[in-house]
Amino acid sequence: MANTERVLIAGEWRDADATGTFQPINPDSGETLEWTYPVSSRADIDAALEAGSAAAGELLRTPVDKIADFLEHYAGLLGESSSELSAAANLETALPVSPRLADIELPRTIDQLRQAAAAVRDRGWTMPTIDTATNIRSMYGPLGAPVAVFGPNNFPFAYNAVAGGDFAAAIAVRSAVIAKAHPSHPRTSQLLAKVALRAIQDTDLPPATLQIVFHMAPEDGFYLVSHPLIGATGYTGSRRAGLALKAAADAAGKPIYLEMSSVNPVFILPGALRERGEEIVGELHASAMLASGQFCTNPGVVVLQAGDAAEQFIAAMRSRFEAADPGVLLGPGGVHVVGEAVRAMQDSGAELLTGGAPIEGGGCRFQNTLLQASGEDFLADPEGLQEEAFGNANLFVVATDDDELEQIAGSFAGNLTGCLYSHSGGDDDPLYERIVPHLRRRVGRLLNDKMPTSVAVVPSMHHGGPYPATGHPGFTAVGIPASLLRFSMLQCYDGVREHRLPVELRNENPNGNLWRRIDGAWSQAGVAASDAA
Amino acid sequence: MANTERVLIAGEWRDADATGTFQPINPDSGETLEWTYPVSSRADIDAALEAGSAAAGELLRTPVDKIADFLEHYAGLLGESSSELSAAANLETALPVSPRLADIELPRTIDQLRQAAAAVRDRGWTMPTIDTATNIRSMYGPLGAPVAVFGPNNFPFAYNAVAGGDFAAAIAVRSAVIAKAHPSHPRTSQLLAKVALRAIQDTDLPPATLQIVFHMAPEDGFYLVSHPLIGATGYTGSRRAGLALKAAADAAGKPIYLEMSSVNPVFILPGALRERGEEIVGELHASAMLASGQFCTNPGVVVLQAGDAAEQFIAAMRSRFEAADPGVLLGPGGVHVVGEAVRAMQDSGAELLTGGAPIEGGGCRFQNTLLQASGEDFLADPEGLQEEAFGNANLFVVATDDDELEQIAGSFAGNLTGCLYSHSGGDDDPLYERIVPHLRRRVGRLLNDKMPTSVAVVPSMHHGGPYPATGHPGFTAVGIPASLLRFSMLQCYDGVREHRLPVELRNENPNGNLWRRIDGAWSQAGVAASDAA
Repeated sequence: MANTERVLIAGEWRDADATGTFQPINPDSGETLEWTYPVSSRADIDAALEAGSAAAGELLRTPVDKIADFLEHYAGLLGESSSELSAAANLETALPVSPRLADIELPRTIDQLRQAAAAVRDRGWTMPTIDTATNIRSMYGPLGAPVAVFGPNNFPFAYNAVAGGDFAAAIAVRSAVIAKAHPSHPRTSQLLAKVALRAIQDTDLPPATLQIVFHMAPEDGFYLVSHPLIGATGYTGSRRAGLALKAAADAAGKPIYLEMSSVNPVFILPGALRERGEEIVGELHASAMLASGQFCTNPGVVVLQAGDAAEQFIAAMRSRFEAADPGVLLGPGGVHVVGEAVRAMQDSGAELLTGGAPIEGGGCRFQNTLLQASGEDFLADPEGLQEEAFGNANLFVVATDDDELEQIAGSFAGNLTGCLYSHSGGDDDPLYERIVPHLRRRVGRLLNDKMPTSVAVVPSMHHGGPYPATGHPGFTAVGIPASLLRFSMLQCYDGVREHRLPVELRNENPNGNLWRRIDGAWSQAGVAASDAA
Repeated sequence: MANTERVLIAGEWRDADATGTFQPINPDSGETLEWTYPVSSRADIDAALEAGSAAAGELLRTPVDKIADFLEHYAGLLGESSSELSAAANLETALPVSPRLADIELPRTIDQLRQAAAAVRDRGWTMPTIDTATNIRSMYGPLGAPVAVFGPNNFPFAYNAVAGGDFAAAIAVRSAVIAKAHPSHPRTSQLLAKVALRAIQDTDLPPATLQIVFHMAPEDGFYLVSHPLIGATGYTGSRRAGLALKAAADAAGKPIYLEMSSVNPVFILPGALRERGEEIVGELHASAMLASGQFCTNPGVVVLQAGDAAEQFIAAMRSRFEAADPGVLLGPGGVHVVGEAVRAMQDSGAELLTGGAPIEGGGCRFQNTLLQASGEDFLADPEGLQEEAFGNANLFVVATDDDELEQIAGSFAGNLTGCLYSHSGGDDDPLYERIVPHLRRRVGRLLNDKMPTSVAVVPSMHHGGPYPATGHPGFTAVGIPASLLRFSMLQCYDGVREHRLPVELRNENPNGNLWRRIDGAWSQAGVAASDAA
């Protein structure tokens, strides 16, 4: 394995203790790419845990400005490497360099790192709570342990285990990251990790602040997420692998945050359909085709009420799907997953309107696919018709009346998002009121009159939702500072001498602008020493 | 079963669908009490889930003032019933009426309900976050589903499933509660539930806002916490039962918050021992003897450094333990648990200093018990020597030097609390700095120079901690509003029309004093309509 790429462990690129190797594929051509990556053994995992644990201990003593400096420096270096990174990611994912990779996803990734840096300096994520009469003070604080991050296949930058949202959040909370790159884009991950290591060295953080392996056996993944030295895990990927990791982590009492699957129901109520069906067809088509449908927030299931307007809507969508060139999927696995989901939906009663088969030839493509089911079909097998296709295959569900529409809303499992299009003049309001209580408790983000695929990185964003969309309905993977809380613990100080408190909890406001909840009210003031018990 | 007491399901006291019956015991005399309670079957659980689910739906539409009115009215009625309730609890738990039950625990329970009512009116627990440029708004909101609450044996009021902290938090978040009373005090729970039902009726809440069963088979508990209709579970009790419930809930993706076990390590550093050993002996003795040691925060393991001062400290503690009358434990099971733990610690190398055996006679008593182990013993079997006795049995661990003391600190599992006593003049500061990083990540609440048994119900309190003390290190069972978050979910609104938003997220501040994070800064102001996208 002389030409096998190296893993980054304990601050050094070194030969993996490998149980095998693999090579990435160019999904556009179907050809195997030239690089060979190792499948790490448990020995690599053990070494990473050991070094990551020591690094997490050091990070507890590292000034916040240094951690913020690293995040900003890394962001800056990523910007400088944009061409090389985008070319590498394009080769492994077939996502277009422009605008997707170079103009949207990498800038978003850089922005996330900068936002995380600002959160580190601001310290507001710690939500300090001080009660002066009892002299009890608490805040969210670091776990003091490394965090494992498993990246997905569909965002080679913004969710990459060595650069994305989970990485930024974990570092901001002073955890070292043990990254498991997605094996569909190892070279992109490797290049990112090289940039990260340079930023680590330049800013003098502990060398093992980031470690990366490229692949491991499932049982070694279970070992990692349940290991006594691990603090928590962030995972984005398939439901099957996510649930297996969750079972391992849960059994060991280790927090794990998973983003697993979502069909993101879109309800287009009758008044909206009449009023602006054609406009919404355009929105739906654009949203559904983003990255060939390989978005966590892809509008997978669209619910309409039967009638002429619905028929026209579906026909218009079908024309657009048939006219559009099928995009490239992320790999051969992606083609297989879409095919399986389409078959499963057909088995559950859905009718194929168009598409339905892989496209022959070298690349990874599937026909643009639409399916349709009746409300009755959906209610008879809601699970079977909520199979996430994760690609360019979408399902229409057509309800006969308001009652059935409401029942359908009440039959969805947990999802990241739920959209409701309604008449601008209020014609749909009574029906909206019936649908929304069902949807509200089933989705993390509820939208009006827009598609779910735009995920703004702002504090109020919630990219999460009830199981099985994620593992816990109270946490978000996107949106700073909230996403940081996943990798923290609540830490209370009872009667602790003032000079021993974290600066966030001392009487003086540590930076003059930290918001703290003092005796019940949010404040940027200091605590008067005379108030402090 | 003509004289079997009834369960409260769907707003009515009705005959249980019982698989058996049980009777509570007076732990002071060991005699069986006169009342007979049912063990509920799955049919009862199904009925409670159905009714609780409907009630949770209704509670979503109930004005907050009405929910707050209920909590306050219930609190007031509890105050009026203090004599009857305290007498009943005393009979079933042997905890003294005065001061414990009537003067401390019931007032605390009443205060918790009132604080929850204030949190409901204040709405601050929802932490509204508004970004005006994107018009994305989010908050913590209700699960829209019933919450199961399992109460423990040791606080018949303050943690009771029908009146305690979990109950108050779940109701405040608009969940209906399905309560599983602790079978050691069914009559106390029944009387409380009767008062609660009266308050529900007086304030016109949905009748199934509270339901109670008194006992069920373990597998029916697993069924309850993993049922599709359940929103989440709060549990306080033994680690064994808690872990079994956790496994069931985890496998179904249902949130469960568990407070399971804790030995609450107390480190008395050498300078403090020299400086004020005698004073600390008094504090430790008082803390350890509270409710015969049956506190979640009982100082179970005390770590000292070898030397004359340590020997004097241990001898003084032994004298006090031997001179004190052993208190009554909560039941025959409690006597058994203490005996098992003492034996387990001896098996793991601890030496018995005093006590060690049950006290013969009718009541439930165990000799005041002290054990001692060397640091070497502890490090050889840290798990065996962290067996929670949950009673009047405490362990000293004596370290040979600073290094061993630090290693011991690094060998504790997750705990609710950790205490550090140190020299007032700073003599212990270098050692403190070595110990505290180990302890900080292992405990929820870190204390200086005080014992852990006082749990103030203030916003900054954290009654929780890393596994296996609880199931997640980010949540607290005590401290309002933070404890409410356990029974909530994060809810985001993206582009939702303003009149459809929850009042917490509309432009106008709903009560003029709600703190909201608007464009990154906490504020009590409204959002200018011109700022809102």
